[in-house]
Amino acid sequence: MRSGCPIANTLDIVGDRWTLVVLRDLFTGKVKFSDFLTSPEGIATNVLTSRLQMMEASGLVEKTTYQQRPKRYAYSLTPKGRDLLPVLQTMCRWANKHVPGTWTPPDWFMSMKT
Amino acid sequence: MRSGCPIANTLDIVGDRWTLVVLRDLFTGKVKFSDFLTSPEGIATNVLTSRLQMMEASGLVEKTTYQQRPKRYAYSLTPKGRDLLPVLQTMCRWANKHVPGTWTPPDWFMSMKT
Repeated sequence: MRSGCPIANTLDIVGDRWTLVVLRDLFTGKVKFSDFLTSPEGIATNVLTSRLQMMEASGLVEKTTYQQRPKRYAYSLTPKGRDLLPVLQTMCRWANKHVPGTWTPPDWFMSMKT
Repeated sequence: MRSGCPIANTLDIVGDRWTLVVLRDLFTGKVKFSDFLTSPEGIATNVLTSRLQMMEASGLVEKTTYQQRPKRYAYSLTPKGRDLLPVLQTMCRWANKHVPGTWTPPDWFMSMKT
């Protein structure tokens, strides 16, 4: 912990270019490792592996085994991960206002409650 | 731009462990390079230099010269930077709920409007 600041602490958990993108994918219904790889940002396999492990370690996601051989996991949001939704929504509002060419998220996403 | 996703685009601008911490300091009245160095997270001089340059290049902050020799700058938020306040506030709410031991921000900060 760098300090007790809630902003610094949140950034220690989600302050990189990928974690909140994977979280977005979980909100839009993706569940499998291979699902996340298909997103338009093109996350690399090793980066995705590392981010999912970090997100599990921080309690943002949990995984369940859906296939034994080879072992495959389904990922889902925990309540702690789900509670980051307002952070995603405020980022969307900011980018739609200030970054030209960004997509407008679907209404169901912007009006979703945690 | 990795995609048109407003979340990915916001993270391209503020998705690191420091940018939003410096932004927080600007909201709490810090203006000079040396002010940011005194924050409890202990940002390194070279990291601060790089982040302020990036924030200026992305239009989040602007600087004015307040001393000529040696040249010293005062930094301030632009409207684009100021509009990130809801992102900071939602991060605070999340950390106060989910990260034990985080400080409760002052009311004026949590109720501030952009």
